[in-house]
Amino acid sequence: MLPEGLIDALIEHLGADAVLTGRDAMAPYERDWRGQFRSQAAAVLRPRTTGQVADAVSLCTQAGVAVIPQAGNTGLVGGSVARPDQVIVSLDRMTAVRSLDADNDTITVEAGCILADVQRAAADAGRLFPLSLAAEGSCRIGGNLATNAGGVNVLRYGNARELTLGLEVVLADGRIWDGLTGLRKDNSGFDLKQWFIGSEGTLGIITAATLRLFPALAQRETAFIAVPDPAAAVRLLGEFRQASGDNCIACELLPRLALELVCRHIPGCRDPLDRPAPWYLLVELASPAAGDWLADALQAVLATGLDDGSVSDAVIAGSLDQAAALWRLRESIPEAQTREGGSLKHDISVPVSRLPAFVSEAGAAVARAIPGVRVCAFGHVGDGNLHFNLSQPPGDDGDAFLARADEAGRIIHDVVAAMDGSVAAEHGIGRLKPAALQRYRSPVAVDLMRAIKQALDPDNRLNPGAVLEYREP
Amino acid sequence: MLPEGLIDALIEHLGADAVLTGRDAMAPYERDWRGQFRSQAAAVLRPRTTGQVADAVSLCTQAGVAVIPQAGNTGLVGGSVARPDQVIVSLDRMTAVRSLDADNDTITVEAGCILADVQRAAADAGRLFPLSLAAEGSCRIGGNLATNAGGVNVLRYGNARELTLGLEVVLADGRIWDGLTGLRKDNSGFDLKQWFIGSEGTLGIITAATLRLFPALAQRETAFIAVPDPAAAVRLLGEFRQASGDNCIACELLPRLALELVCRHIPGCRDPLDRPAPWYLLVELASPAAGDWLADALQAVLATGLDDGSVSDAVIAGSLDQAAALWRLRESIPEAQTREGGSLKHDISVPVSRLPAFVSEAGAAVARAIPGVRVCAFGHVGDGNLHFNLSQPPGDDGDAFLARADEAGRIIHDVVAAMDGSVAAEHGIGRLKPAALQRYRSPVAVDLMRAIKQALDPDNRLNPGAVLEYREP
Repeated sequence: MLPEGLIDALIEHLGADAVLTGRDAMAPYERDWRGQFRSQAAAVLRPRTTGQVADAVSLCTQAGVAVIPQAGNTGLVGGSVARPDQVIVSLDRMTAVRSLDADNDTITVEAGCILADVQRAAADAGRLFPLSLAAEGSCRIGGNLATNAGGVNVLRYGNARELTLGLEVVLADGRIWDGLTGLRKDNSGFDLKQWFIGSEGTLGIITAATLRLFPALAQRETAFIAVPDPAAAVRLLGEFRQASGDNCIACELLPRLALELVCRHIPGCRDPLDRPAPWYLLVELASPAAGDWLADALQAVLATGLDDGSVSDAVIAGSLDQAAALWRLRESIPEAQTREGGSLKHDISVPVSRLPAFVSEAGAAVARAIPGVRVCAFGHVGDGNLHFNLSQPPGDDGDAFLARADEAGRIIHDVVAAMDGSVAAEHGIGRLKPAALQRYRSPVAVDLMRAIKQALDPDNRLNPGAVLEYREP
Repeated sequence: MLPEGLIDALIEHLGADAVLTGRDAMAPYERDWRGQFRSQAAAVLRPRTTGQVADAVSLCTQAGVAVIPQAGNTGLVGGSVARPDQVIVSLDRMTAVRSLDADNDTITVEAGCILADVQRAAADAGRLFPLSLAAEGSCRIGGNLATNAGGVNVLRYGNARELTLGLEVVLADGRIWDGLTGLRKDNSGFDLKQWFIGSEGTLGIITAATLRLFPALAQRETAFIAVPDPAAAVRLLGEFRQASGDNCIACELLPRLALELVCRHIPGCRDPLDRPAPWYLLVELASPAAGDWLADALQAVLATGLDDGSVSDAVIAGSLDQAAALWRLRESIPEAQTREGGSLKHDISVPVSRLPAFVSEAGAAVARAIPGVRVCAFGHVGDGNLHFNLSQPPGDDGDAFLARADEAGRIIHDVVAAMDGSVAAEHGIGRLKPAALQRYRSPVAVDLMRAIKQALDPDNRLNPGAVLEYREP
């Protein structure tokens, strides 16, 4: 399938063990996390160094072969899925922590570092690397940066983009841009790293990054709070931010349905409160300062909320184990939904102020189209980012429900657009949503995207088909 | 000087009062803040709406005339200086606060809004807009964003870039990109706003922005601390960040010389401590949470510092007036330096961990070249950003000293480069430093910058000569 001599040249530059062509060896790299795409590559390359990544890219692109970069392969939108005439470049052997500068609060890591390993290296130095998401035990930092990953601590610390100071990138022509800097202020020309973060491997392959670290956390309070509706949740979010000194590091919204599904399907999960409530907030306050004033702040906000009706009940974790049990309720939702039957996922965001209206309008719109559908809208209320997921009507045929994915997506995304929201909040576009990008972003915005793609990768060799609609070369 | 008919067409679209061609009327727009550049425009346009900016740009660029965008005209690197065949587009009439969404913690303002007015609008809504710099009473937000302004609160809140969620931009061909969004998470394609922030008007003209707001501050502690050397300052910075719960919002370093010059030249300024010390830190801790634990944290760090020798003396502001007096010492340094005689400014940054070594190495290098030179290195130690300014040797000829600007700059910038620093930390490149960009950024980086410039402004009509080296069209 590949041009003659390419495999030999790749073996010469990368070593035989770095060039996989056997079906079994390639299988883990061809698997799509959610099983939505058929993926089959001509070869999988596993370079050990940035120079080898550059060699791989220039050999492939000069031979007219497209390159699909891949890190942890845990993405949810088919961002690293290959066709049989394409080559996957995996970063999974580039796992070094190149350096850590505690006084500068920075760490420099290779793209294949597993996110949890970055967190651990920071903790070992008495620092915090705050990027945190469900896949952190297997996702790799290069993928986190290529997709501008979000997660649960964006509210206080920002997305992956805001945590990045410098990048090393292999360009489409095989040149290496060494932009590894640990500077907090650098206006010496355009900020090139911003182009590559969130570009999903379509403009260059990130091979290493210098990331911001923060003081380690010394006090932490976790509470699971019953609230009457999303409007109360938004109100409480503002009060928690103010009272905690902007130390609300996570604020997650769960509907009653999510808690019921988790308790039904996930062993060991149970409702921590005595009576059912329509909605819940999982709130975490944390600070690098010693002391116990966050506990006071939490109690004060809850007391006011119980008085004015924003809060109907709450439990505060008394230990790290109890906090972990509360987080398990939140993090088990996707698995519980899968076990319940057919489910359709929508990763959307709206301004925080419009989130309550969005939940009711989008919920009503899908209920009109699909009677009996169950809305399981949960997620990062502090970022206006909901996973507005739908579970099939009980007893219905799951496949028939899943066949309505496009229709349901269109209904929900239209409400998102009407509220100035995003149809791809934290998971990216990948190969799942290029048509939605085309539909909901303005023609000027799409033109600008095509212009930079054309400037940096004129032959469309880097991850073609992701982000921007695929055109046969 | 302009093509025939252009002025008439501009008057038709913008109105006669928006097209200035008289020398007196244009003078304020032609003035360069530091008087380093001769500036003289063919016309100054003062559009009232985004549509009029778009008309102005398309009329000019179609006529082959270059456009120099200008906001508050307070930049320090000649970023909005015009030649006699160029037209200045001033944003100074577009000063509306378009909207403020308190629940979403966002404000949408036009590019001509004065920074202090943005701060005030936020405060009126019980929120904080944290961008703060000496020129805040006259600089305009469009210029702050076009230069990715820094200032004193970057340590806690980030640069202008990190405070921006959405932009509205007029492109080189006169099209308007409406990217005004208040979303915290949006990965629906490339993050276009990042291209324009910090591009100094060379890729598009920012006409409006949606900015992040934060909870208002409720407690604040300000201290002026005598320290033996920059290494002690870096150590204390880390301790303040940890002890305050990452609520150290400013950390400014001053050498003894700066304090002496300020006390000598600025009426009402006096040394707040009894004995002289080689270096000083001006530290501000602040939190949106009520309480007095920041005072405790400050006292604890100072007590430890007095014990271990990191601190030799300190004064804590007992009132807002006292805090303002301490800040006046810091903010008067540039004026005091000017009154002292010839001075050369260098806006540089290095990793925080290398700042002590930088101060001694760069200081020694300039002293070798210019015996008697006095180094006045002050600024944002928390960001590794120093204004490494030189005052002329006492009694020497000021003009002879100023004539050595290029030589001194080269010496200092070489030390910066050897320490992985930036020769343009927060003021930008403008027309002052394109050669330094070319020298200290890698050829690959410069190529990438030229590639996006070519893609977005192929005829080089937007602020030609700024950032990238000027080539006659």
